[in-house]
Amino acid sequence: MPDPVTPAGAGPSAMPKIETREEVMFFDTDCGGVVHNIAYLRFIETARTRLAAKLGLSLQEMSQTGLFPVVVRTEIDYRKPAKLGDHLSVRGRLEEFEGVRFWCGFEIVRDADGVQLITCRQQLAMVQMPAGRPVRLPAEWAKFKR
Amino acid sequence: MPDPVTPAGAGPSAMPKIETREEVMFFDTDCGGVVHNIAYLRFIETARTRLAAKLGLSLQEMSQTGLFPVVVRTEIDYRKPAKLGDHLSVRGRLEEFEGVRFWCGFEIVRDADGVQLITCRQQLAMVQMPAGRPVRLPAEWAKFKR
Amino acid sequence: MPDPVTPAGAGPSAMPKIETREEVMFFDTDCGGVVHNIAYLRFIETARTRLAAKLGLSLQEMSQTGLFPVVVRTEIDYRKPAKLGDHLSVRGRLEEFEGVRFWCGFEIVRDADGVQLITCRQQLAMVQMPAGRPVRLPAEWAKFKR
Amino acid sequence: MPDPVTPAGAGPSAMPKIETREEVMFFDTDCGGVVHNIAYLRFIETARTRLAAKLGLSLQEMSQTGLFPVVVRTEIDYRKPAKLGDHLSVRGRLEEFEGVRFWCGFEIVRDADGVQLITCRQQLAMVQMPAGRPVRLPAEWAKFKR
Repeated sequence: MPDPVTPAGAGPSAMPKIETREEVMFFDTDCGGVVHNIAYLRFIETARTRLAAKLGLSLQEMSQTGLFPVVVRTEIDYRKPAKLGDHLSVRGRLEEFEGVRFWCGFEIVRDADGVQLITCRQQLAMVQMPAGRPVRLPAEWAKFKR
Repeated sequence: MPDPVTPAGAGPSAMPKIETREEVMFFDTDCGGVVHNIAYLRFIETARTRLAAKLGLSLQEMSQTGLFPVVVRTEIDYRKPAKLGDHLSVRGRLEEFEGVRFWCGFEIVRDADGVQLITCRQQLAMVQMPAGRPVRLPAEWAKFKR
Repeated sequence: MPDPVTPAGAGPSAMPKIETREEVMFFDTDCGGVVHNIAYLRFIETARTRLAAKLGLSLQEMSQTGLFPVVVRTEIDYRKPAKLGDHLSVRGRLEEFEGVRFWCGFEIVRDADGVQLITCRQQLAMVQMPAGRPVRLPAEWAKFKR
Repeated sequence: MPDPVTPAGAGPSAMPKIETREEVMFFDTDCGGVVHNIAYLRFIETARTRLAAKLGLSLQEMSQTGLFPVVVRTEIDYRKPAKLGDHLSVRGRLEEFEGVRFWCGFEIVRDADGVQLITCRQQLAMVQMPAGRPVRLPAEWAKFKR
């Protein structure tokens, strides 16, 4: 997979993306027989975390600096349900900058038939913990602006 | 607390509401020192479940009939963070009907200072499981239409 | 309910106990149709937290002092499953002191028929975070020694 | 990796084992700054599920037959805490047969320094859902008996 973070050219860089894999476990499901609506947000957090790592924000670093990307809004559409044992691909990408905030977009697709199960957008802000003070987005991200 | 589901008059009934209480536990928090964004959705599910019970949809009944209200969309805004040991009030109400779907609205408020931490809207559909077939909203709900 | 923490007599105090209530939500269950084995440990944590508050260790205080009771061992027996909508009582008590550690015992009972579903023992230590250094049990607890 | 389930020889087969990998996410941690005690049990469930698949019990199959391995007892020791961003290896193995039940053993090790963080044993039974009736262990497992 080509790394979209380190482009060769001089123009604006392609927006970074990620793809992660999940296998649906018992703890992801509920007694309706399908994946519980909250479990998909764990899958999305894993993808978002790996996307952040691509942007230079690794968990280990955050842990030391206390500088975290914090979710300020989630919009999620549940289109089709996943089931126990399904293999899923979670695709995430940086989508948009909006002042000191940015949006990421996600979709979850079932590997067996390529059906799109979930679409989701999350707005995030960089926050300095424990004070909870919002901070500017990293200067290096300017290259991603469209 | 007056029960909004069984009104005295002949006009449209007031939209049903609920209020539930939570105390923030360790398992609700993360190493950022505040409540994790996913945990609020459990608080909201508890309120939504109690609201559904007021509408005649108890968990025990769902469990027997296989007829469930299923979340099809969530929009949630994280305004201020809750912390370990905070006492929270979760207020939910039926907000709107849209064909075979309906919207519920929620807010989470910190009891100590009345600050609003979270606002959330969820769109739901009634679904017959395990087939996953959408079904009409209960006829009795017509009285809530505005 | 009499408060076992503030006894009248001069002899050793009765070991503190707690009882909390839970209603089984969708997010507690899995597609086997019953409560998932991990969910009971959340119920038990809630009871343990309220028990700790009775012992003078409130969440708000822990949050400020960084002095936490940490689980070092869990033994849990799954005897009968709980289902969606079940009302459960979680009974916890301080059971034993073992040097700088102590044991709590729990049982979970279904309210409808009084059937015992879960028994559990947890060994805890008082730990000063973030260093993770174990510390002595509070001196006031001496009165509970058998 | 050699597959211990399909040995060449005539003697008793080696007990099946598995190793899975985890990266600690925010949702795994709590405000004590380390992984929450319940989160390790999700890591262990993932390993146990992959171990079951090696034994011929895949999630997809369970989902269709309703025949599940159910945890009847967990013993878990929390030796050292994992932190945000840690890479962990979860090692599981089938350990012992006891009539219609069997034991699995697990350890969780931090990849960076090889330190053992968690040890755990779980006793399981094969159960036919939704009736919840215990059933005999698969005949093929006889080859693993010591």
